This record gives sequence, C-alpha cells and structure tokens, in this order.
Amino acid sequence: MHMRAVIMEAPGQVVVTDREDPRIAEPTDAVLRLIATCICGSDLWPYRGVEAVDHTLMGHEYVGVVEEVGSEVRTVKPGDFVVGSFVVSCGVCEICRSGYPSKCVYFQFVHGTIGTQAERARIPQADGTLVTTPGRPDADLIPSLLAASDVLGTGWFAADAAEARPGKTVAVVGDGAVGLMGVLAAKQLGAERIIAMSRHPERQQFAREFGATDIVEERGPAGAARIRELTGGLGAHSVVEAVGTEESLLQAIRSCRPGGHIGFVGVAHEGVKIPADELFFAEVHLHGGPAPVRRYLPDLLQLIWDRRINPGKVFDLTLPLDEAAEGYRAMDERTATKVLLTI
Amino acid sequence: MHMRAVIMEAPGQVVVTDREDPRIAEPTDAVLRLIATCICGSDLWPYRGVEAVDHTLMGHEYVGVVEEVGSEVRTVKPGDFVVGSFVVSCGVCEICRSGYPSKCVYFQFVHGTIGTQAERARIPQADGTLVTTPGRPDADLIPSLLAASDVLGTGWFAADAAEARPGKTVAVVGDGAVGLMGVLAAKQLGAERIIAMSRHPERQQFAREFGATDIVEERGPAGAARIRELTGGLGAHSVVEAVGTEESLLQAIRSCRPGGHIGFVGVAHEGVKIPADELFFAEVHLHGGPAPVRRYLPDLLQLIWDRRINPGKVFDLTLPLDEAAEGYRAMDERTATKVLLTI
Repeated sequence: MHMRAVIMEAPGQVVVTDREDPRIAEPTDAVLRLIATCICGSDLWPYRGVEAVDHTLMGHEYVGVVEEVGSEVRTVKPGDFVVGSFVVSCGVCEICRSGYPSKCVYFQFVHGTIGTQAERARIPQADGTLVTTPGRPDADLIPSLLAASDVLGTGWFAADAAEARPGKTVAVVGDGAVGLMGVLAAKQLGAERIIAMSRHPERQQFAREFGATDIVEERGPAGAARIRELTGGLGAHSVVEAVGTEESLLQAIRSCRPGGHIGFVGVAHEGVKIPADELFFAEVHLHGGPAPVRRYLPDLLQLIWDRRINPGKVFDLTLPLDEAAEGYRAMDERTATKVLLTI
Repeated sequence: MHMRAVIMEAPGQVVVTDREDPRIAEPTDAVLRLIATCICGSDLWPYRGVEAVDHTLMGHEYVGVVEEVGSEVRTVKPGDFVVGSFVVSCGVCEICRSGYPSKCVYFQFVHGTIGTQAERARIPQADGTLVTTPGRPDADLIPSLLAASDVLGTGWFAADAAEARPGKTVAVVGDGAVGLMGVLAAKQLGAERIIAMSRHPERQQFAREFGATDIVEERGPAGAARIRELTGGLGAHSVVEAVGTEESLLQAIRSCRPGGHIGFVGVAHEGVKIPADELFFAEVHLHGGPAPVRRYLPDLLQLIWDRRINPGKVFDLTLPLDEAAEGYRAMDERTATKVLLTI
C-alpha cells in the first residue's frame, strides 16, 4: 500500500510523491491517518538553503485518527482523534517528568524522520507523544488543534519562559506564526500590556486580534529603544524571541529589563552568536529551545475545545496536500503567514 | 588631608599613591574609614591588559567604619561598622525593589569611580548600598565580612540563579574565589552533590572544605562529558559559571541537563560569544550578570556573624595596603587565590 507524502528534494524543490504506508514497528508505536498538517516557518530554513536538505521527509505538525497501535500502547486506541508534538517523547524518563519532553532521552524530531506532510504517519512512543481530544472535533476546531501541535505550543512555551503574568509588560520579537501565538499566550497568561514588534499591516492586525495592546514598527537597536521608551526607560518584564537571528536575539536582550525574562524559541542556526558581554550586563534570564509542547498540550486542547482561544486563525491559506509546493512558495514570499494542508 | 590609595597606571603597573581625602558631596553620601579591602579576580583583567586601564582607581570590595554621613542618610551613622556591595544602588527604584540592585537606575561601579583599595572612600546612596553589622565584629570575622562584599555575594547569586537546592547536583566551572564561594553557597542552599571542576590541588582542597563532594579535573568537552557520566548521562541540574570565557561558557552549557539552570557570573568580556544554537538545543536556563550582592548581604552577614559559614578562608595571602603590587603579582601568578589588604 502506498500513500502521498511531501519530500523536499533540494532547497526550493518540494514534491508530493508516493511512499510506502507506515506500519507498526515497535510495540510502543501508533499509526495515524492524518487529517490535517501544515507548513512551519522552520521549514523555510531548508527551503532557502540555510539548513541542509536532501530528499527530506517534511512536516512535523499533525492531527489525525489512530488507525493501529502496538501491543504496549495504553493511552490511545484505534478511532481516537489525537494531536501530537513535533518531538517524540516517552513521557516517563527523568527529563520528560521534569517538564522537558522536547529533550526526552528517547527524543526524535518528527521532521526528517517521520514527516507528517503525508497521508499517514507512524508515531513512536505513542503514549508519551500523543494526546486524545475529548471527542471527535467539529471541523472548525481542526485548525486550532493543529496549531497546538507546534506554533501554539511553542508560542505558549515562549510566553511562559518569559514569565508573562498579570501586571507585566511583554514584548514579542517576531511576527510570524510563533510570535503571534506568543501574543495569544501572553494574553491568556494575564499580561497587562503586550507589545508586538511588526511592520507588516496584516500581521499587526493578527497581533491585535490575538491580544497585542501596542505595536512597535522599529527594529534592532531602534526597536529596543522604543520598548524602553514605552516602559519608563526600564525595558519589558518579559520578551518573546521568535526569530532566532543575531539581530533578533540582541533586540530581545536589549528590550528586556534587568531581572526580566526572555523566552527564546526562534530556531538559532549554526553560526548565530550571542555576544556574552551584552547578555551578562543586561542581567536577564534567558530560557528556550525546542518547545516542550507535550507539557502544555492537555491544557491547550481543553482551551480550544472550550472555544476560549482560536489560534487556528493564524492559518491564512488552506491548500490540499497535493499543492504543498504552492504553500511553501506562499510562505517563502510572505503572502501567507501559515499554510494549512488538508489531507 | 591626604590618604593612601591604589592606582593601576597601566597594565601590570600597580602603585600606592597619595590622593585627597574623600568628603561628603551629596546628602545621600557616607564617608568610610576602610578597615580591609582586597584584590578581585576581575582586577586581573586590566592587570593583564584585557580590559582598558589608565591610572584607574582600584578596589571595589570593602568593610569599614562610617566617619561621616550626608543629611539625608537614615540607616547608617558615624561609628557603624558596615559592609557594602561593589555596585552603588539606591534601594528604592523599581529595579532595586525587584531584586536587582546591581542594575539600579542610579547604579555606579565602585571600581574605577571610587576605588576602595584606599584608606577612605565616599560611598554614594549610602542607605541603599551599605549594611550595618549587628555590632563591632571580632577581628577574625573581618575576612569573611569582606568576602561578602563581592566574592561570597557573587558566588551565592550564581548558586541561587543556578537553583542549587536540596536533591540537586551542582557543577561549578571555575576554581577561583567566586567558584569556591559558589561551592559554599550550593552547600548552604542544600545541594545534594557538588562537583567542583579544578585541576589545582590547593583549590581542590579549598573546594572540599567548602562542601564539594566530587572533583572533576577534565576541562572543556571532556569536562562536560565527565559531568554527564557522573549524572546518569543527563548533566547537572545546576551549573555555576565563574570564569566568563567562551570555553567555560560552553563547558557550563554542555554540563547542564535540559531544563537545568546555569548561574553565570564570570565577567564576560567584549568579543566572547555564545553559540546560539548550542544554547538553544541545550534547552537550559541561563541567568547572570554583575551579582545583586546587596540583595543577599543582610542574610550573609548574619550567617557570618553566627559563625555558620567561614568564607574568609578563601583569603590565602594577607598584605598591608602599601604592598598591593605584590598582591596583584601573587594573584596573577596564581600563587594566591585571593589577597586581603589590611589598611
């Protein structure tokens, strides 16, 4: 049996090909029939040739229905509607139990090894990786549930790591989907003031809808200076860094007050360096990395189920899986913020 | 009236010269007659020409007796024995109140602007900067009280920022006075296991006396690998970074488990860079900077007063102020860990 799946053959070359259907290989596996998947900002790194790519299996965000489970799987069963994280995690090792499933001792990135821009996927460590929704979701909830798989969970982790809380001012560096989810999360976590840094009118509009109270268009040192101006010269209590370049990291460090917290989720690539003296004398807290989305999934799914948040709004283009290449192009050219692929 | 004071004229050139006696200039000032001061590891940076120096007023650690106060000073009075931090802080601004006096909006480094390797010093913001001891200390307490002024307070901040706590394993990168004080602090904060990274027999001995349970002699990647080996492959929960070079920062990052905490107090100089991808994928918490020593001083002075800690042991050479140049030489050549200067 074969299925359709997205492969990136080389930078800029996205094709939908036939691949063999996945099957249970380990007793802890589940095989899912995928319902929806999407293209991530991080998929643009290989697309643009910044990250190595060679016939790579694409896709790491997913919602789907369990088709089959291995003999040791206990928490999901065929027919369950599930959402998973972009990192496979066991849920029981010391690192998972401490809240960092993204660094599980058995961790595996779904990107490149499984690839969920496909009709089906084998998910290892199903008990630790997947979360079942309270029932079969209405169609209009699918985009939001899919967002939970990465961008919402990642933005949430960033806002949480930045300690967005009541009474606090949060600055968000980066107006991509993750930055926008950081705005939504900061709002849910009770932040008093949320400053989105963006110069794109559509994304400013998104940011306002998700809870931004202020927009700053300046970037780099001027952007940081503007944040200080808006915060009595002190800087924001909390900063979400959702870009991952040297310029954006410095912008985040310089926008944060002494003792403040930076949640750092923009994927930093090889060669990106943080000047240690700037970080030292800024005296901020810096925490981030691949988001431990699985930690937040149960709460996020409930918020979505109860229709208290609508992160799915971040998808501004929906295409069938077969038109994935068009979706990559739209995100690369920034004509779309985030592309949902229906399967 | 004149006094004796240490000036660093140029790298490696330390002289004791005459300077005019300090006087009250602002109503918030106090003038102290200094009892003891010391040479800091950070004084070696200009000594070695790594940091700019040009007839610089040296010294930022001090204990002394208040001689005179300005009209607005409320918490200290002539005759009081006091300990101060190496940063002037007001104690009432939003940043001070949030626990970061080291980044007070009126902050001023004592080094270079006041210089406490001298017979007297004018301390601005006396109410915010100085802490009075419960009485006139016995002579044997002087070294420990002096240590509180910087190295103890800095090591304590590092261990606290690293979240050294009961049940945790703490690795300490750097066997200078601050690293050793990090060991002492980790012990006081209840850490279960404290791994000092040192290849100097005398400093290993110091570390054991202050509470280290293990010594690792390897450095760099081999050092980090050894820490992982000692911690079931996971890395330490908490890491104190007390050096400030690229190598030591990487050693700290690689020694720390995902979700763990690094307390970063080694002064990072211009040009030192942290690879952002290593930091990102390590998924650690990083926090540090010039230590907010003033936050900890009241508690530290009480611990010393009650003879529950003896950080003064870290001074292994005592010289009169007039022989300061000899003290710098000893620290530069590592024949002394830390030099106390009597006044």
